Amino acid sequence: MSDLPEPVLVVGTGLLGTSLGLALRRRRIEVLLRDRNREHLRTATGLGAGHAYEGGPVGLVVVAVPPDHVGAEVARALIETDAWVTDVGSVKTAPLRALEDMWGIERYAGGHPMSGSERSGPLAATETMFDGRPWAVTPHKRSSEAATAAVEELARLAGASVVRLTPEEHDEAVARTSHLPHLLSVLVAGRLAGAPADHLALSGQGVRDVTRVAAGDPKLWQQIVAANSAAVAGLLTQVRDQLDVLIDAVTTGDRGSLEEILQLGVAGTQAIPGKHGGPSRPTVSVYVALPDHPGELARLFADAGASGVNIEDVHIDHDPAREMGLVELVVDETRADQLLTSLGRRGWDTHR
Amino acid sequence: MSDLPEPVLVVGTGLLGTSLGLALRRRRIEVLLRDRNREHLRTATGLGAGHAYEGGPVGLVVVAVPPDHVGAEVARALIETDAWVTDVGSVKTAPLRALEDMWGIERYAGGHPMSGSERSGPLAATETMFDGRPWAVTPHKRSSEAATAAVEELARLAGASVVRLTPEEHDEAVARTSHLPHLLSVLVAGRLAGAPADHLALSGQGVRDVTRVAAGDPKLWQQIVAANSAAVAGLLTQVRDQLDVLIDAVTTGDRGSLEEILQLGVAGTQAIPGKHGGPSRPTVSVYVALPDHPGELARLFADAGASGVNIEDVHIDHDPAREMGLVELVVDETRADQLLTSLGRRGWDTHR
Repeated sequence: MSDLPEPVLVVGTGLLGTSLGLALRRRRIEVLLRDRNREHLRTATGLGAGHAYEGGPVGLVVVAVPPDHVGAEVARALIETDAWVTDVGSVKTAPLRALEDMWGIERYAGGHPMSGSERSGPLAATETMFDGRPWAVTPHKRSSEAATAAVEELARLAGASVVRLTPEEHDEAVARTSHLPHLLSVLVAGRLAGAPADHLALSGQGVRDVTRVAAGDPKLWQQIVAANSAAVAGLLTQVRDQLDVLIDAVTTGDRGSLEEILQLGVAGTQAIPGKHGGPSRPTVSVYVALPDHPGELARLFADAGASGVNIEDVHIDHDPAREMGLVELVVDETRADQLLTSLGRRGWDTHR
Repeated sequence: MSDLPEPVLVVGTGLLGTSLGLALRRRRIEVLLRDRNREHLRTATGLGAGHAYEGGPVGLVVVAVPPDHVGAEVARALIETDAWVTDVGSVKTAPLRALEDMWGIERYAGGHPMSGSERSGPLAATETMFDGRPWAVTPHKRSSEAATAAVEELARLAGASVVRLTPEEHDEAVARTSHLPHLLSVLVAGRLAGAPADHLALSGQGVRDVTRVAAGDPKLWQQIVAANSAAVAGLLTQVRDQLDVLIDAVTTGDRGSLEEILQLGVAGTQAIPGKHGGPSRPTVSVYVALPDHPGELARLFADAGASGVNIEDVHIDHDPAREMGLVELVVDETRADQLLTSLGRRGWDTHR
């Protein structure tokens, strides 16, 4: 049985709120929903994310509203109920600041599931949204241990893995692992806008990977960045200092300094945790050329599966001129030869 | 029959030179190899990339040596032979500068296949290295049309798609689509080095994509960047100006300015050419949760293939705590429902 104090009241039935309701309903937890947007509420209840809240006692309130409104809704929950309170906002210290002397604040512990989508609204929701994702749980100085435990139980029941951090640590962490990469990706992508088409024809997988996140919704991202402005501005200033060193090295031809910056980047890529939380193991890429139509990928993965080698990651690159694809299979360094031999024997056109 | 002037002499039997030999041998073109590194030469000939050059007339010389040595080897080829001459270096104007008044320079037209690997040397070579990749062909002002035609034929016979650009356009293009993304990826990755492990635990797919290329070889990249310093420094300076505007917007809370920068990034991602050279079509992501062991991906792709929907791209994200993976299938917007229905019917745990 779950230790979650029920019923759970979810405030806000957008993408995250509705997905949370659906995820909890899988575990038969009683979920109540509130939203001033009546249409969202109707959709969410219709999808089976919970029942519309009509008053009465609740065990846990989850605030799932846009970043600009989190503080006010947390305060309202503390005043109107005697339940534990949490939220799912992307930034933790700014909303808390106005609340910290508030009566009942020990009943609040923040949270932030590392999930999302480029879409929004209840129709985009799904019960598997949080499965296997980290969920930061961020108790503040006065959070009671029982409030924190309730939020951690919520995260686990939704399918996520709990990572406990202070609100300040969380905001530093996401500034570094999410907001800074997003903004720098935006600056690289911004340099592509308006470039000649025959220049852009040379675009390979590298620039596509670096700029993928820059396609995210500007209205959402300006709220996120604004709410975490101190941590983000600090990191951006560090990057500007590094950029000055880099421009100087490129302009004066100082190759030693250039190589030092490049080496630090390599070290950074190695610092990202590997799969299953263990240290990252060395991987290599195996490339396979294949006709670009349905069924060929299936045949390839069937053959790769038959080789007994686990595929750690996949990238697909398309031939800009012919109906061909090039698939990059990333595998453990020690297994690449096995995969190459196995695929070669089955007639695939492979290389490392 | 091929119009390529044979035999082709490949100077340098590293990754690209050996791969080119192998690619041309598929078409039964006569390939001769030269390298002052006797061991590389022996390996390349042993792999079947061509025969060791022992003098005599050649039709086309391909210089495939590290960036720092391209200019000298092109000059030598123009002096010692009366053949057409090209190279496969990542940067085009700097090596040309010292040669432009040289006797015979009309026989030279540069080239740059958009291929590579994080590995190097002839043992990493493969005959499919250039298949379906763009190959920039970069005649200079005095290149003869016949020289340019020979280089274009070479690129096509190696399996690549020709993109013709001037040397200056090429260097501007790769500064924008390759060198700038690489360097900014390095700066983001550099901010991860030394960060606390529990902060890095919040790393998602976004930061992994943005920083992937930053793992590339610093020794190679400092040569590339140094050879294209003017174009790279120009773009880095534009980025610094944008970064100043961004820091100012974040610090002062100027959301209008922040959103403008974010919007320009979105426009940039839309400027990258879509698959098969056509305009990029709107795609959406379909997510599938699956146990993280060999065979499951095969089963998934078999079922996805049976749905008749073409998979445009794939990303795999791993649960840091459990043996689970989350696979993102990117498909044409109009086909997502078909795929979801089909996978759902086959028992997969899917969401958008």
